[in-house]
Amino acid sequence: MAKTQTSWQDAAASMVEHLNKTIDEIRPKVPAVPETLPTNVTGVPSKLLPEDVVKVTETPPQVLIAKLASGELTSLDVTSAYLQRAGLASKLANCATELLSERAVARAKYLDAYFAEHKKPIGPMHGLPISVKEHIGMKGLDLNAGFVSWVGTIAEDDALILKLLWNAGCVFYVRTTEPQALMHLETDNNIYGTTVNPYNRDLTSGGSSGGEGALLGLKGSCLGIGSDIGGSIRSPAANNGVFGLRPTSHRLPVSGWTATMLGAEHIIPVIGPLSTSLEGIKLFCKTLIDQQPWLYEAACVQLPWKDSSEGRLLRKTASGQRKLRVGVLADDGVVKPHPPILRGIEHIVSKLKEHPDIEVVDFPPYKHEEAWRVISSLYFADGGEEEKTAINASGEPMLPLTNFILTDNPNRKELTIPELWRLTKDREAYKANYLQHWQSINTSLPAPGEAISVGVDVTRELDKTVDVILTPTGPGCAPPHNCSRYWCYTSQWNLLDYPALVFPTGLQVGKQDEVEKGYVARNEEDGYNYELYTPERYVDAPISLQLVGRRYEEEKLIQALEFITEVAQLPLSS
Amino acid sequence: MAKTQTSWQDAAASMVEHLNKTIDEIRPKVPAVPETLPTNVTGVPSKLLPEDVVKVTETPPQVLIAKLASGELTSLDVTSAYLQRAGLASKLANCATELLSERAVARAKYLDAYFAEHKKPIGPMHGLPISVKEHIGMKGLDLNAGFVSWVGTIAEDDALILKLLWNAGCVFYVRTTEPQALMHLETDNNIYGTTVNPYNRDLTSGGSSGGEGALLGLKGSCLGIGSDIGGSIRSPAANNGVFGLRPTSHRLPVSGWTATMLGAEHIIPVIGPLSTSLEGIKLFCKTLIDQQPWLYEAACVQLPWKDSSEGRLLRKTASGQRKLRVGVLADDGVVKPHPPILRGIEHIVSKLKEHPDIEVVDFPPYKHEEAWRVISSLYFADGGEEEKTAINASGEPMLPLTNFILTDNPNRKELTIPELWRLTKDREAYKANYLQHWQSINTSLPAPGEAISVGVDVTRELDKTVDVILTPTGPGCAPPHNCSRYWCYTSQWNLLDYPALVFPTGLQVGKQDEVEKGYVARNEEDGYNYELYTPERYVDAPISLQLVGRRYEEEKLIQALEFITEVAQLPLSS
Repeated sequence: MAKTQTSWQDAAASMVEHLNKTIDEIRPKVPAVPETLPTNVTGVPSKLLPEDVVKVTETPPQVLIAKLASGELTSLDVTSAYLQRAGLASKLANCATELLSERAVARAKYLDAYFAEHKKPIGPMHGLPISVKEHIGMKGLDLNAGFVSWVGTIAEDDALILKLLWNAGCVFYVRTTEPQALMHLETDNNIYGTTVNPYNRDLTSGGSSGGEGALLGLKGSCLGIGSDIGGSIRSPAANNGVFGLRPTSHRLPVSGWTATMLGAEHIIPVIGPLSTSLEGIKLFCKTLIDQQPWLYEAACVQLPWKDSSEGRLLRKTASGQRKLRVGVLADDGVVKPHPPILRGIEHIVSKLKEHPDIEVVDFPPYKHEEAWRVISSLYFADGGEEEKTAINASGEPMLPLTNFILTDNPNRKELTIPELWRLTKDREAYKANYLQHWQSINTSLPAPGEAISVGVDVTRELDKTVDVILTPTGPGCAPPHNCSRYWCYTSQWNLLDYPALVFPTGLQVGKQDEVEKGYVARNEEDGYNYELYTPERYVDAPISLQLVGRRYEEEKLIQALEFITEVAQLPLSS
Repeated sequence: MAKTQTSWQDAAASMVEHLNKTIDEIRPKVPAVPETLPTNVTGVPSKLLPEDVVKVTETPPQVLIAKLASGELTSLDVTSAYLQRAGLASKLANCATELLSERAVARAKYLDAYFAEHKKPIGPMHGLPISVKEHIGMKGLDLNAGFVSWVGTIAEDDALILKLLWNAGCVFYVRTTEPQALMHLETDNNIYGTTVNPYNRDLTSGGSSGGEGALLGLKGSCLGIGSDIGGSIRSPAANNGVFGLRPTSHRLPVSGWTATMLGAEHIIPVIGPLSTSLEGIKLFCKTLIDQQPWLYEAACVQLPWKDSSEGRLLRKTASGQRKLRVGVLADDGVVKPHPPILRGIEHIVSKLKEHPDIEVVDFPPYKHEEAWRVISSLYFADGGEEEKTAINASGEPMLPLTNFILTDNPNRKELTIPELWRLTKDREAYKANYLQHWQSINTSLPAPGEAISVGVDVTRELDKTVDVILTPTGPGCAPPHNCSRYWCYTSQWNLLDYPALVFPTGLQVGKQDEVEKGYVARNEEDGYNYELYTPERYVDAPISLQLVGRRYEEEKLIQALEFITEVAQLPLSS
């Protein structure tokens, strides 16, 4: 990695200067931001930007794609609008590392010329602007993953996912912030400082894809690329009231990103989308998987995207209706979620219970504290040496949440190979037990040995299992800065490698979400979480939830959320 | 693991005594073996066994299943026949660790009673006897994986694969030998001694599933279970002239086996079938995958078995014919195969070239020596400590081929976590390069970046790629004992995680396979291999080859071999 010759402060300052320059270059110019801003800045863009820009940027991606494909909108219209709104979003929430107006405008013009000549779109995402988390390599641009010492490292090539999206017709126009070490559920580094939550600037945008989260929360993007090893797509999606999917590992390609510990496969990091609409999530996955990523990345599973039209992935009742069984895991038994989260779950559950084709069942947690022991022991199998080296190389200080996960994490140690193998066995044992746990709920399909005895109709028993789990994305809504210490509502599904889809309920924290009086904390983490909360402190934070599916069932998971959205009358887009 | 209280010699002797006892218990009794045996004993069983036993045991598994399902044969008929022939095979080739007459007969009677009562088979493999490699756990029986110190360890449960096969109606009747440490391409341990090749007892049966190989070579089984991390299914299948499949990882379940280094996932070991017929291989996979192993083993990929009937997985030509493109990799560029192997390839290639719907193209090797560096560095990431501990615990000596792979292997060392990560990155880089190499042959589908530029029709280009690779299974036919030192014709596909299917050509080594005179060795390994060979030494050894497919394409691979079998008029069963 390239070393900076200057002090870390100078290196960081040069990057901020570059960012500001790229915002200044946007044409038409990005409006100036008033000196005094409200705590909730989500209403600001529509006041400062021209009406046509607002209109375009408040259109969900699938509608934009349709309009681009019909010629009703040009890619230059859409790209210019998003450049302006993203530039403004960055002024409001500090969520971008650079704007790419020159490249994006050239690309948009190329696509418009293509359309004019061929009278058809170049691909299924013709002309759509996409935002990209910084550590996903973009040829010729900086690739620092939030480490000051890596500033000046230039990507030699585009990441595979960008090539595939490019082939589908996308425009890349903005790169977004991430935290130091990429291992916070917040977004704060020594280059760009802190990314804030646009709904309440005293709260975090989440992380590590927090630049994406805040940008999408401000509608400075309708579809962006994040990455996730413990909640890094889902925490920002939840905190900013947008959709976000952590897919099963090896469904979407990751080649060409950068990070520390790239050879580690003990917990598999993934790339996934954040979007202002559920349809955007689906389009992203389908567009990539339809291009057969396994032809280009050896680890990708050869598993085509399943057609989910006409509800075919959900079960049919006798009367031919769709049928969905939702397990509700409202509380992981370790840290109790804050009142607004529980309100969100109750709100949805009450709607689901009224529907004849949905069955709601209790989904008890299974040793989530053991899942954390295993995953937090496997995150830094080298004891965190690569992280520390990358941080110390520039002299930049270690940030509080880096200390939390790296230094203070009691499970973090340099492992020997036999220790690594023991933990890997623990991980697989936990996965086996959880699989059995899932299947034991509501069915008489027990563990393998006994299960598949003669006379048990596996298909019929499977038909009684839970399809998806409805659960929080965190123990609260977006926390105040430097307080995101409890990962387990998201990291649980990384350990298990289950797909997990975050969605906004459309609700926000308000006065009615009173503190639970006389609550006795279960443990230190639960006490910490309890103390954090007051409705005043969290005011306006979006109430988001998570839907979790079985491995490789992204299509069904999305379809289940479409059904739930319809039944619970949720916002289809944020 | 349980420690023996006695000397290692006594522990081993007690196991051999047990084996002999279980052979003596078989009814009708297994015939005695003449004191003087020919070098090739494959003709002995049909001389010593009753005609009806010979007839049943020389019937391919798919025909047996059909006859069992129609009631033409009872499971007791079939099981008794296989018990006798397996008992005899063990006397001839030393391939069994124990015969299970009591269990097997009880199971067969149960299945016959079920059939009598219900007038239908209990499952798709109703009544079929299956042989099982020893380290695959069988409840209540010893589980020693070839280590004397592990003798006395009793399996607490059946392995998952046995449960699924049991549910399909199988009968388990014999357990088979494996080498010390499970890491030889031969079968020799300090408990049972050496398993020999029935075609030529001076040659090895191969390994590590060499007990299965020799047993199937003598038709003491028609379908057996082996395991493979470097060639352990394929070397025995090839050496004994039967079919064997190493599937892609995580398609078939492995829970419930034993071995050292169970937490290691740097190179994934797999379970797969050996069979006297290609149809047996297919039935085995389909029967297991149709039971959705991902419901019971978290790591299994949710990928249903694809219907390969009517040639639908092969491409169609304009005239509606099946179309197959076969890449020929006759020589890996490191160690040149012996003359009989090259004769086998030429024989098949000449037939394939005559067929209008098959295209034969040259498939050059790509840095196979680098693949060996990576895989042999990753096999024993703890430096071989677990192996050494298991061997030394009893005082048993380390066998020559254990020394070869463990002590003399220059790449074997205890890795630090950073070293492990570097090698993992090297592994993934090699896989990426090989993927690109495969796709670069015969197509204009280049690497991702350039490949998916506008105007390239991926589907059309893919249609031009190689479907399967035809390649040797080793640098020669079954070698003399203690000489199987070159793994790379099989381990290559473990590193890449490609499915690989071994099949007999029906040819055997004979006088016409003359030594290549004046050959100049390329390197030390090549020289070692060259010096091994004379047609007299290898006489009668089956000439087998390997067909390699793309990841997760087992169905297409099998279908391709069906087509090749038809075109090249190969034996459909061995």
